[in-house]
Amino acid sequence: MRAITVQPGRANSAELSEIAEPAAVANSVLVEILALGVCGTDVEILRGEYGWPPPGRERLVLGHESLGRVLEAPAGSGLTKGDLVVGIVRRPDPVPCSSCAVGEWDMCRNGKYTEHGIKELDGFGCERVRLEPDRLVKVDPKLGDLGVLLEPTSILAKAWEQIERIGRRAHWEPHRVLVTGAGPIGLLATMMGRQRGFEVDVLDRVTDGPKPQLVRGLGARYHTGKVEELPKLPDITIECTGAPSLVVDVMKMSSPCGVVCLAGVSSGGRTLSLDVGGLNQSLVLENDVVFGTVNANRRHYEAAAEALAKADRAWLSRLITRRVPLTRWQDAIGKQPHDVKVVIDFQNATSGS
Amino acid sequence: MRAITVQPGRANSAELSEIAEPAAVANSVLVEILALGVCGTDVEILRGEYGWPPPGRERLVLGHESLGRVLEAPAGSGLTKGDLVVGIVRRPDPVPCSSCAVGEWDMCRNGKYTEHGIKELDGFGCERVRLEPDRLVKVDPKLGDLGVLLEPTSILAKAWEQIERIGRRAHWEPHRVLVTGAGPIGLLATMMGRQRGFEVDVLDRVTDGPKPQLVRGLGARYHTGKVEELPKLPDITIECTGAPSLVVDVMKMSSPCGVVCLAGVSSGGRTLSLDVGGLNQSLVLENDVVFGTVNANRRHYEAAAEALAKADRAWLSRLITRRVPLTRWQDAIGKQPHDVKVVIDFQNATSGS
Repeated sequence: MRAITVQPGRANSAELSEIAEPAAVANSVLVEILALGVCGTDVEILRGEYGWPPPGRERLVLGHESLGRVLEAPAGSGLTKGDLVVGIVRRPDPVPCSSCAVGEWDMCRNGKYTEHGIKELDGFGCERVRLEPDRLVKVDPKLGDLGVLLEPTSILAKAWEQIERIGRRAHWEPHRVLVTGAGPIGLLATMMGRQRGFEVDVLDRVTDGPKPQLVRGLGARYHTGKVEELPKLPDITIECTGAPSLVVDVMKMSSPCGVVCLAGVSSGGRTLSLDVGGLNQSLVLENDVVFGTVNANRRHYEAAAEALAKADRAWLSRLITRRVPLTRWQDAIGKQPHDVKVVIDFQNATSGS
Repeated sequence: MRAITVQPGRANSAELSEIAEPAAVANSVLVEILALGVCGTDVEILRGEYGWPPPGRERLVLGHESLGRVLEAPAGSGLTKGDLVVGIVRRPDPVPCSSCAVGEWDMCRNGKYTEHGIKELDGFGCERVRLEPDRLVKVDPKLGDLGVLLEPTSILAKAWEQIERIGRRAHWEPHRVLVTGAGPIGLLATMMGRQRGFEVDVLDRVTDGPKPQLVRGLGARYHTGKVEELPKLPDITIECTGAPSLVVDVMKMSSPCGVVCLAGVSSGGRTLSLDVGGLNQSLVLENDVVFGTVNANRRHYEAAAEALAKADRAWLSRLITRRVPLTRWQDAIGKQPHDVKVVIDFQNATSGS
């Protein structure tokens, strides 16, 4: 079968390979992949800057944002042929840490997890995969091919869960949310903020393309200025860019008792000159919280499935700005000016942008 | 009666003044002050760097760490003559914000609170005060003059409450605590960490004086090196120095899913060159939390009273390294090499260091 494979650590080593069908394993679910979303982590892996192959191998099957359809499922698995499913990306070590042991592999404390398509486990960028039933999450059939948005949405379901749990450390009546970055993560963060009834301001650099309309389509406000220019301080900030100067600005501009969620990964080695004393003083005197979040566990995938089920499907489909057939997978990697989410279509050889 | 007063904003303006007795107010408790603790905020006010007088006045009665004894209490107040009491420092605005309205003035969201001895309310550095019963917290009579430690302990009771509430955002099994700074706040943080059964490492610069023994007396470890030299990463860090480079180091050296509590106020304007991208990346990929905390509400004073009641009284009395009579109040301000907590004694004219 066909698979997009890459040699982690070597730039531009990706290719469409012919690999063996997944080996039949007892109590596993055979899934045909319908679609694969492309994200920043994939691009980093393709550049040779991130990723680890399975032990003893050179190449890794790419892809962690997937949508598949069940071809065969064992009895009692809760899944049947035809179900739409998404694979969970992270898998705990067989000897789990205390968090992995309770299913919170997203909070792994010893770093021994593996991740499909990223870290030591083949990804979902191939025609068929076999997974244990508990590594799959069912998607509402009404969502159809929009189910490929489940994995990125799970990241925000976790972020929102953590924001709300941390926020409730004291009396908590948030009203205003700031989201920095109007890429897929920022837009899904905004969608979930609006679902909670919050006022949401979104900050991004671009003035044209689909982002401003996507933001306004959610009833949120779109800004291209500086954080300091926003009319009021946010109670909740979700930072989705990883841009160092913006990370600092949102920490400074949080409301008293505000919660800043860092959800964007930066590259290291970007040094700024910073008044750390002033920043510490404002965090202390205002009881502010700053926290980082990554990955998601099963309850976040399930919360994400609920969030997508109640979202406006016309809006969700506008989030996917290009669909590229598997035969032209390389077109999905090269960023085009107005891309938001780009998806590789594994079924329709003739789909195009 | 005598009072230590100061003109906020003017350095070295403090003096022992003669002021009017507190006016009799219905349903108020008359308290004679027994002792006043001196802290960093007092020193800042004395330097003219902080503090606000009551509206329409030039001078402020100093002092917010107090111990008093009830002289007269209204029936039904829950207090009787002879009770040891401590005044709560912060008072919400008559038109409270949503946090102040539920008694969480420590989390005030609009900054309109006032503070005895700091912000627009006379402090407790005078012979007698009158307060409403709900502005006083009763101290276990067995604590005696150690009750003056209640207010600083309340700061840590809040810090620990917030650490535990934030930590429980996910599965949480902390073992190791790092405390930076072995002043009164760091030592009380350590005491409360040990009461919870945690292993505690304490980092400070000094190698002599009482601090190493005070730390070891709690069954904690004392270090004078760098954060990076500690044998293991802490699950919980309580930063009590406000020193900018240490603030950055503890953020970097927190364990995955670690919680860093910033409890030390820095001066602003101390610029460091910092790899913000690398710091953001490690906060995100490790699910780390950093939060600031200040002040305390009634439930924290009550938790602090419990923590002091179960502490070793011999250890607590070693924390108070000098007692100075009111007539020599100025001796309490000038820092001496081995000071930990210095207390001004309002009753005993002959007490000395």
